[in-house]
Amino acid sequence: MMRHAFIPAFAVVDDCLCVGGVALPRLATRVGATPFYAYDRALIRTRIASLREVLGPRVHLHYAVKANPMPALVDFIAPQVDGLDVASGGELKLALDAGMAPERISFAGPGKSEREIAQAIAAGIVLNLESETQAERAAAIGQRLGLHAMVALRINPDFELKSSGMKMGGGPKQFGIDAERVPALLRRLEPMGLDFRGFHIFSGSQNLRAEAIVEAQHKSIALACRLSADAPSPVRILNIGGGFGIPYFPGEEPLALERVGAGLAQALPQVAAALPEAAVVIELGRYIVGEAGIYVCRVLERKLSRDQVFLITDGGLHHHLSASGNFGQVIRKNYPVAVGNKMRGATRESATVVGPLCTPLDLLADRMELARAEPGDLIVVFQSGAYGLSASPTAFLSHPPPLEVLV
Amino acid sequence: MMRHAFIPAFAVVDDCLCVGGVALPRLATRVGATPFYAYDRALIRTRIASLREVLGPRVHLHYAVKANPMPALVDFIAPQVDGLDVASGGELKLALDAGMAPERISFAGPGKSEREIAQAIAAGIVLNLESETQAERAAAIGQRLGLHAMVALRINPDFELKSSGMKMGGGPKQFGIDAERVPALLRRLEPMGLDFRGFHIFSGSQNLRAEAIVEAQHKSIALACRLSADAPSPVRILNIGGGFGIPYFPGEEPLALERVGAGLAQALPQVAAALPEAAVVIELGRYIVGEAGIYVCRVLERKLSRDQVFLITDGGLHHHLSASGNFGQVIRKNYPVAVGNKMRGATRESATVVGPLCTPLDLLADRMELARAEPGDLIVVFQSGAYGLSASPTAFLSHPPPLEVLV
Repeated sequence: MMRHAFIPAFAVVDDCLCVGGVALPRLATRVGATPFYAYDRALIRTRIASLREVLGPRVHLHYAVKANPMPALVDFIAPQVDGLDVASGGELKLALDAGMAPERISFAGPGKSEREIAQAIAAGIVLNLESETQAERAAAIGQRLGLHAMVALRINPDFELKSSGMKMGGGPKQFGIDAERVPALLRRLEPMGLDFRGFHIFSGSQNLRAEAIVEAQHKSIALACRLSADAPSPVRILNIGGGFGIPYFPGEEPLALERVGAGLAQALPQVAAALPEAAVVIELGRYIVGEAGIYVCRVLERKLSRDQVFLITDGGLHHHLSASGNFGQVIRKNYPVAVGNKMRGATRESATVVGPLCTPLDLLADRMELARAEPGDLIVVFQSGAYGLSASPTAFLSHPPPLEVLV
Repeated sequence: MMRHAFIPAFAVVDDCLCVGGVALPRLATRVGATPFYAYDRALIRTRIASLREVLGPRVHLHYAVKANPMPALVDFIAPQVDGLDVASGGELKLALDAGMAPERISFAGPGKSEREIAQAIAAGIVLNLESETQAERAAAIGQRLGLHAMVALRINPDFELKSSGMKMGGGPKQFGIDAERVPALLRRLEPMGLDFRGFHIFSGSQNLRAEAIVEAQHKSIALACRLSADAPSPVRILNIGGGFGIPYFPGEEPLALERVGAGLAQALPQVAAALPEAAVVIELGRYIVGEAGIYVCRVLERKLSRDQVFLITDGGLHHHLSASGNFGQVIRKNYPVAVGNKMRGATRESATVVGPLCTPLDLLADRMELARAEPGDLIVVFQSGAYGLSASPTAFLSHPPPLEVLV
């Protein structure tokens, strides 16, 4: 059986997992109820520090709020990064509430409503335009408000990010403006009264291959340099996306971050020469918070059905859809799961961890080797800091929603 | 290209879809915002009437609240059915609020918390026990409360429902008590102070083959008759589940309901002879409400990317996860989708319908033949009355939740 290759960064004391230095049973008591999500401040701080070291002082680091919009978490991250990227009017509010300077907030999304465009212009953030229509709407709304909208063009490149969990560029796409149509739009921006700030090129996400990421970064930079020929003013922002993946499944290895940093560094002189006023922005969500979060639920019952052990918990797919395998996965695989108060355990066995829902989809671990667990024990799902709670159908079967804590 | 075989039951007037007799543009104005879900009272009433006719007066019809827990909908359905089945403490509250008599409410679920078991016993509803442990907990809690818990045993049968969308019986399962262990538990119920009411045998869901459903019903009835030999008192409730499917995808045909009714009728004399006090219960959720509901969103933008037409809407997977193909489907297929205010349209074309989210998963229709749509037009996703809103990650990317109306 293939195993999860990586070692989670959380400390283990007396066979109990610790989050932010607090042993899990004590943390569960402090939270007051299971299930819950817990995010470790120190792990987030360490991750951001590693990124800063590898990317160097010339690269700007942004946090993509969509990965985890918990307000306390956004407040904690905001002072540690150079900007926040938002994907809706709701996230825009969160980013402003966190105290981020408006010009350091950018708003992407293929389907922005008129209300959201007006919100963004009134806030003075950077609108990433994804189409000619969005440009025309931003111009009209800006005129109505008597404000010049700050805009960047999101480009649908003419290449794809190889080996990516999700491809978001290349071919026909709802995202961005096809690269070949960008020059014509660039020439229209000034007459439309739009304040051009730069480019946004995001080609994919959840990539574990450093070479593929570096190749996409180099191509994005080359594309931006080429397109800047038609820009009405110097490129100030060059957001080349993120796409840094984290390992979820057996056989996956962590991204070689140093290789990404080294590869990107090679392209920076080209940016400095061609686009001297441009800040290169790397936009990361999952990579900043994904490994710092766990989902915790409690074993309600240990059940033997025809020789298979089922650990029935109070948590499940309604709180953590991705771990159940129902969010973009074609073949279901187990997330890394452990018994948080018996990390090693006296005896180990193969067990299936399920939730309380009346559906066979409600599966957190399928025949996985775990410490032998009893009712009251705490099940931990690792790699749960991003696209966990906010990406889950919490109302499904009308159970109470889980809590979230930043520790 | 394979097409959706069935004809939705909604009326079309002046090329506009009507819900409850109201043309869609007017309904959208009445709701006040898009996106929204709309459920048609008349279609639900007609569906329940067809079921009554086919199943006959001796079969009890229950509504499974989990399919759609909208309070107004549950209130509307409650007086038309013989009982409600709930899957959580939250659904239990909904069923009682709807005025259903407690003894006509049953509570299934593999992971009931102690609080939920106490709620059920205090309410006087029927607890479907899914394990020996649940039986012991119900007995202990009942004793503490000074109340006899009414219980049914949910059985994990020794057969599977063939061709089922989801198998929930046979083999090792978290659902129910393995059939071979039921006799021993039946003999313990009276000493434990539990009031035995009957059996619950639910082998699968979303099945479109009448023969497979009938075969499972016959086997369930035979199993219940056999197991009743060890029951402490007459079987009063024999819930043989539901599993009646509705067609979602191209190539699927509606269930031949009459064949299910005829097949079930053959087995009723056996029940009358062996279990004279038993009411046979058919428990349906999706089949009652699924086809009566639509999801409606508005086209924000018509976008051409490299010769492919994208209709970018204000709705998407955050409101309707199943239609995006991310809820239990292995291969994504299109739900039936139409332009609700141009059902036929002057011209037709192939278009891809997406939502506002920054993910390629946010897909409502992939290269489907539709009337040519413009911004402001209304996109309709059919077969959306069950497992729609409540099964969707509404907080994903912090957009406002959709509304729901019963028309």
